[in-house]
Amino acid sequence: MVTLNDKDKEYLFGKIRDVHDFPKSGIIFKDITTLLNDKEAFNFLINHLTKRYETLDFEFITGIESRGFIFAGALAAKLNRAFVPIRKPKKLPYTTISEKYSLEYGIDEIEIHIDAFSTAKQNPPKVLLIDDLIATGGTAVAAIKLLQKIHVECVEACFVMNLKFLKGDAEIVKTTPVYSVLEVF
Amino acid sequence: MVTLNDKDKEYLFGKIRDVHDFPKSGIIFKDITTLLNDKEAFNFLINHLTKRYETLDFEFITGIESRGFIFAGALAAKLNRAFVPIRKPKKLPYTTISEKYSLEYGIDEIEIHIDAFSTAKQNPPKVLLIDDLIATGGTAVAAIKLLQKIHVECVEACFVMNLKFLKGDAEIVKTTPVYSVLEVF
Repeated sequence: MVTLNDKDKEYLFGKIRDVHDFPKSGIIFKDITTLLNDKEAFNFLINHLTKRYETLDFEFITGIESRGFIFAGALAAKLNRAFVPIRKPKKLPYTTISEKYSLEYGIDEIEIHIDAFSTAKQNPPKVLLIDDLIATGGTAVAAIKLLQKIHVECVEACFVMNLKFLKGDAEIVKTTPVYSVLEVF
Repeated sequence: MVTLNDKDKEYLFGKIRDVHDFPKSGIIFKDITTLLNDKEAFNFLINHLTKRYETLDFEFITGIESRGFIFAGALAAKLNRAFVPIRKPKKLPYTTISEKYSLEYGIDEIEIHIDAFSTAKQNPPKVLLIDDLIATGGTAVAAIKLLQKIHVECVEACFVMNLKFLKGDAEIVKTTPVYSVLEVF
């Protein structure tokens, strides 16, 4: 499957803004809104992902709330696939299954509808997971566990940016292929 | 600009699930996840919106967090436009402007980056606003006000579903064209 060459990665990196001390002092936040609001850069990224995944066999694309929805929605539309949201607690109206994960302080949780893949023609259903960023990997690992619980096959976990030095993908790669468009070492 | 005929509206309505007593007792919640996870229905809707907006002159599509991101992301990718997020407080990392609005109990707020439209070639920048649902219109009215504050022209406010009996669009239509794919009277 296609990846980006160094020049193209550099182009996309150049569209991402470092915001210092967000969400708290000492953190350098990777702000992708400057990539999103650049028509050429956003569509270059989406077209790259479209090319990467157009021949991979899966029916569903799932995005993690909130920023994952942007990329998952875009790709589902470009690839003519179905969209499944993974959301924060109490946001999905129907019966859900959930998965807890640890934060630096405390615990968070994500949910998916129990019938999220009921339209699948394949058994097990196949899904591509997308999120904008993987840092320590708490949310992404929980999302993979949710998909395992609900008996769907995650064909790949895709991240626009991977903060590799935090090793957030170490757990995921044991069960699931991981693709990161941009990696920060 | 194109609209849907009654048969197509009925098709899409049939994909939306009524969930009773969510988020609280007495409310019938319009659950669009059953439309999203149906490949044909989701892409039928996105292709309709693509056709409606492909000849309209605007550079940006803005979606309101979270569900608006799905449709705005999809449409930005299909139409080769830039994407701008309107988010809940403290989610956007850079300098923002914000707009408060009333809820049934209390006050909520949405934000946009002050430089969200800095890549615009047009002056004023032109934007299409998308959200999944308009009910009492609090969020959508606040979003329109945000766009006015930041001096961009909203060419249309588009909602997948409009609970017309709540008259949430009454304030918006005074300044901005409104298009609702599906209307509940």
